[in-house]
Amino acid sequence: MTTTGQRTVAETARHPANRYGNRPTMKDVAARAGVGLKTVSRVVNGEPGVTPDTERRVQDAIDALGFRRNDSARVLRKGRTASIGLVLEDLADPFYGPLSRAVEEVAREHGALLINGSSAEDPEREQELVLALCARRVDGLVVIPAGDDHRYLEPEIAAGVATVFVDRPAGGIDADVVLSDSFGGARDGVRHLLDHGHHRVGFIGDQPRIHTAAERLRGYRAAMEDAGIATEDRWISLGVTDPVRVAEAAEAMLTGQDPVTAIFAGNNRVTVTVVRVLAEFPREVALVGFDDFELADLLRPGVTVVAQDAARLGRTAAERLFQRLEGAPYATERIDLPTRLIQRGSGELPPSV
Amino acid sequence: MTTTGQRTVAETARHPANRYGNRPTMKDVAARAGVGLKTVSRVVNGEPGVTPDTERRVQDAIDALGFRRNDSARVLRKGRTASIGLVLEDLADPFYGPLSRAVEEVAREHGALLINGSSAEDPEREQELVLALCARRVDGLVVIPAGDDHRYLEPEIAAGVATVFVDRPAGGIDADVVLSDSFGGARDGVRHLLDHGHHRVGFIGDQPRIHTAAERLRGYRAAMEDAGIATEDRWISLGVTDPVRVAEAAEAMLTGQDPVTAIFAGNNRVTVTVVRVLAEFPREVALVGFDDFELADLLRPGVTVVAQDAARLGRTAAERLFQRLEGAPYATERIDLPTRLIQRGSGELPPSV
Repeated sequence: MTTTGQRTVAETARHPANRYGNRPTMKDVAARAGVGLKTVSRVVNGEPGVTPDTERRVQDAIDALGFRRNDSARVLRKGRTASIGLVLEDLADPFYGPLSRAVEEVAREHGALLINGSSAEDPEREQELVLALCARRVDGLVVIPAGDDHRYLEPEIAAGVATVFVDRPAGGIDADVVLSDSFGGARDGVRHLLDHGHHRVGFIGDQPRIHTAAERLRGYRAAMEDAGIATEDRWISLGVTDPVRVAEAAEAMLTGQDPVTAIFAGNNRVTVTVVRVLAEFPREVALVGFDDFELADLLRPGVTVVAQDAARLGRTAAERLFQRLEGAPYATERIDLPTRLIQRGSGELPPSV
Repeated sequence: MTTTGQRTVAETARHPANRYGNRPTMKDVAARAGVGLKTVSRVVNGEPGVTPDTERRVQDAIDALGFRRNDSARVLRKGRTASIGLVLEDLADPFYGPLSRAVEEVAREHGALLINGSSAEDPEREQELVLALCARRVDGLVVIPAGDDHRYLEPEIAAGVATVFVDRPAGGIDADVVLSDSFGGARDGVRHLLDHGHHRVGFIGDQPRIHTAAERLRGYRAAMEDAGIATEDRWISLGVTDPVRVAEAAEAMLTGQDPVTAIFAGNNRVTVTVVRVLAEFPREVALVGFDDFELADLLRPGVTVVAQDAARLGRTAAERLFQRLEGAPYATERIDLPTRLIQRGSGELPPSV
């Protein structure tokens, strides 16, 4: 970390122009401290030849302005390439392919490079990666958060690293966030199954500590409640989305007393595993999945999904980021993007028991 | 670029210990120049107080050792996180998902962070990204090259940035490379179609300037030649793999005089589009695709593929990279990984005309 002075978000709010606007320069520090540029440079680089009193004055100016030495600018001899960082959750999840590519396209439109990393759904790793990207002088960050406490980003944001969260909200800090309507999308998807005559609808979702997973579960419960159905615990399974866990969950709710006749799958990873289970299952089971996926239309039956627009999520977040970098006004925003139900056959099957 | 002195590969060869071993430190420079550490620091940071003669001696030592100032080490107050960079070709290509994840897992096993970027199949962008990652002080690079001239990497490699190429070879430099057997895999896949009675087999591939595309075309031609079949130009289509181009190519070779009765698809993007075309096509056409893809087994018919082990490619490349970073011996190596034919139905269909 190059932070020579850190401010809290509350302090930053008193200097809104610096929050997402241009970063303060050494010249700004020199002007505020009433010293020459060389003196600021000496303090910043820890060189000798500055009196303690002057050093304190410079340090105060650095703290007040949230100045950070821009190492990249010094490092790159022939001008610096702007760059933004993208922190994903899982490099192998196809949902993030179009999202990443959209962020990259926007970066390119702005003459910037995109650097990615993956948190592997680990909050500690997310923090490590975010701070590593900041230390490598990205100008801004698009973050799909793994954790739910992002206060560690306060000094970075205060120092001018624009940050936009996407897919899941930030925790503990005030930041722009771009989300799909997970609650409404899941409610619509489950309602669609209920409209086709199902009463016993199962829900298989990701870990409930993940915002999108919790919201989709809430949408499922809302649709069931709207229909006056008392949901049974055994119709709901939450946890990691690895195929073994999901397949066991599906088999459990499909068998035994009062088996489900339809499944709502909480994301594309879950849906693909449920499709595999149902391909081997002796009776027809209706299925609606959250997230579209490649070849969903070519399966028999085609898989009905609640589609998010992953590319639009990425593009919206990246465009917001560059607006921030270009000095857009202060108030942060939450942008909700709609989902879309795509009927392909699996969600229109009637109950078979 | 922080390069304070650049050496050619030939020069580096005289200092093999530095090529992939530990980078020279300021201390090494000081020892070689016969000056104190502070003097080296002054020269490196462009500070005053050094005589021209001493500056020249330090600069000579810097050049001889290939020393580069390690900014990250100075930037991170509490020790530095090792990091490696991965340069992909397309963030949205599912082939790179498991490859990236495998590289990331190996990085994590070595306590290092992975930072990705995409060249979007543009050689200029590849170079820009690679140098940006080097400027951001990655310790090593895994590169899926878009271009075929990597001499721009010579100063970086000379300065100690270990580099391993994967999926496609490096051009113009001597570096480790991990490849799948594209030639052998394609030859086996086409032979499989010929063994099932086909004579008119089409080939739809990526742009021939891409190494893997050229190798797979060569495999196709070898299998046809082995079978004594004179291949017609209209059975071969090469170019970008966007769905419109591929669909038109497939439709063209499937219609008219002497239409093909089987298609060999040069990669997963091509295969998926051909599957869509065949789903609407009035007669049965055999299909073998290079690269496995999700749900290939659940389509009707299941899609026969020549599978690469993308995760193994990534793991092998990353492990080789860390061997280099840990000082493995000098000679570079080309590692070829086998492919595997997976029969699922589409490749076993007989000719229908």
